[in-house]
Amino acid sequence: MAPARNARVLFSSIPKDYPIPGETTVYDASQTIDIENVPLNGGFLIKTLVLSVDPYMRGRMRAPEVASYSLSYQIGESLNGYGIGKIIRSEDPNFPPGKYVYGKNIPHQEYSVLSSSLDMLFVIEKDPKLPWTAYVGAAGMPGQTAWMAWKEYSNAKKGETAFVSTGAGPVGSMVIQLAKRDGLRVIACAGSDEKVQFMKEIGADVAFNYKTTDTREVLKKEGPIDIYWDNVGGEILDAALEFTAIYGRFLICGMISGYNTGLKGIKNLALAYPKSITLHGILVLRLFEKHKDEFYATVPPLLASGDIKYKEDISRGLESVGDVILAVQEGRNNGKAVVIVAEE
Amino acid sequence: MAPARNARVLFSSIPKDYPIPGETTVYDASQTIDIENVPLNGGFLIKTLVLSVDPYMRGRMRAPEVASYSLSYQIGESLNGYGIGKIIRSEDPNFPPGKYVYGKNIPHQEYSVLSSSLDMLFVIEKDPKLPWTAYVGAAGMPGQTAWMAWKEYSNAKKGETAFVSTGAGPVGSMVIQLAKRDGLRVIACAGSDEKVQFMKEIGADVAFNYKTTDTREVLKKEGPIDIYWDNVGGEILDAALEFTAIYGRFLICGMISGYNTGLKGIKNLALAYPKSITLHGILVLRLFEKHKDEFYATVPPLLASGDIKYKEDISRGLESVGDVILAVQEGRNNGKAVVIVAEE
Repeated sequence: MAPARNARVLFSSIPKDYPIPGETTVYDASQTIDIENVPLNGGFLIKTLVLSVDPYMRGRMRAPEVASYSLSYQIGESLNGYGIGKIIRSEDPNFPPGKYVYGKNIPHQEYSVLSSSLDMLFVIEKDPKLPWTAYVGAAGMPGQTAWMAWKEYSNAKKGETAFVSTGAGPVGSMVIQLAKRDGLRVIACAGSDEKVQFMKEIGADVAFNYKTTDTREVLKKEGPIDIYWDNVGGEILDAALEFTAIYGRFLICGMISGYNTGLKGIKNLALAYPKSITLHGILVLRLFEKHKDEFYATVPPLLASGDIKYKEDISRGLESVGDVILAVQEGRNNGKAVVIVAEE
Repeated sequence: MAPARNARVLFSSIPKDYPIPGETTVYDASQTIDIENVPLNGGFLIKTLVLSVDPYMRGRMRAPEVASYSLSYQIGESLNGYGIGKIIRSEDPNFPPGKYVYGKNIPHQEYSVLSSSLDMLFVIEKDPKLPWTAYVGAAGMPGQTAWMAWKEYSNAKKGETAFVSTGAGPVGSMVIQLAKRDGLRVIACAGSDEKVQFMKEIGADVAFNYKTTDTREVLKKEGPIDIYWDNVGGEILDAALEFTAIYGRFLICGMISGYNTGLKGIKNLALAYPKSITLHGILVLRLFEKHKDEFYATVPPLLASGDIKYKEDISRGLESVGDVILAVQEGRNNGKAVVIVAEE
């Protein structure tokens, strides 16, 4: 068999602010791969089916000397991230051909030779009623972030009020539904009227567009809040601090308002002590081992039955990755951003 | 018996920044009281022995329409705060003459008629080896703040590193000693070399003057820290966030850097999620009921035996209150600021 194309998405330069498709990331179709003969070195070859595009990826587009919880991307190398691949060939009995792998560092390539030493990589079974895309979204890292941290830190009590930012995204939309299942009243915000509509459909009691409505006014009227799920930081976090109830819990999951243009200083943290606030920083990787079995036993069936809803914004082909990365940073995606690289 | 003088300290105007003795607070000796005949209305008459001057009092010097956890002082009325009084006459069998009361709203007057309905007011027994002043300091609210919150939130483990701001103050110095008793390494800062010396005496492994030494440099060298006890906010809190370890615990007790001149925005809170930080806002009033019996059984004996050390900055006479309030806001006190209003 002739060598096959092995297109990839390269990290080309560190973005100044927003990542620019074709500049900071470049689609490259020049490489080929000999699928039948490429050496496996004890590992296995996958065909990439699905890649996830997530907000945290912006943090990896940095100079390698800047430390962070995630590895920086290497200039001239393929991007990588959460994804699903089908095992084509294998020299590793734990990863047999025909099975599927889920990993957090799947290269943005059509084919990759992987080793089991790669961090967080495992064989995954699919619920027949769910598409693979769900396994990088509501049944993947974003859904796990919401589910595991809500379980670990929310201390939610029936009748309380939760406020969720980026409530139409894959994390926020799961949080809204978990809060409703726990009997809470939910206030949620997002950046478009279409997203507001979706948040209402999945159960938000109060949903608003933070670009056209003043968050402080909403919280003043609808608060105080008992739990705030923060994906944005900045002024919305400050507003949440202002209108939290005593013993408010803050689950800090991300601060996308600052990923590209720098974060504003938080002014209202001095309310932490008069209000006896507790704040938890969330990194799903550190909750994963403890909660993963229960998550995979619980959440995919709830998604398959429709009891928990999710929304995907699907693009096709590796060449779309750069555009999708930018859309996610700008909040233009409508649902979990996923790229289908190939059908089986 | 002729009427006695009943001097008091009045709240006269809301400070613009720092409270000015004689302007925002005024000593007034014009009133008298008929000790033997003043009506008690079912309550009791106290002679004030000791008054506490604490940083939080600045927050009560505000316009009454501004909500907070503490009541605002009323212009033209006496200040009040933590204090000890001796009961002179009584119509309340729970507060018999000859006993002593501890309360959080003791008027800044030589004599006051009180009622048991006043918030947090109770008869207190003194360890014969301790002075009454200790009961508003290391054995009072500041000591309780440190002891109760450390017990509740620090999750301290032997061998960890703690960082304590205002480590020479009544809260910070207790935290340093609790951390050492739990087997931690302690870094502590304060604003004078004399305070640095005291912090070393009570066990701090690393003690520095934040006015002459760069906090970031110290933490870069001596950190990372596992627990940060914050009494100051601002740049020191930002430095602590930068040099905290994963799973760092932040106990936010006060932010005196902003009480008089406004608080700087916190820039590094976005490190909460990559570092899985937990932050707890502390208000001792909300921990008091749960921990008070154990506190009073444990701490006064440790103070009396010298196992836990404390330092007092004692002034005499109500006329000194205004100066002491300013000194505390400026950090010029050297030890717990206490005013002895009268000997028994």
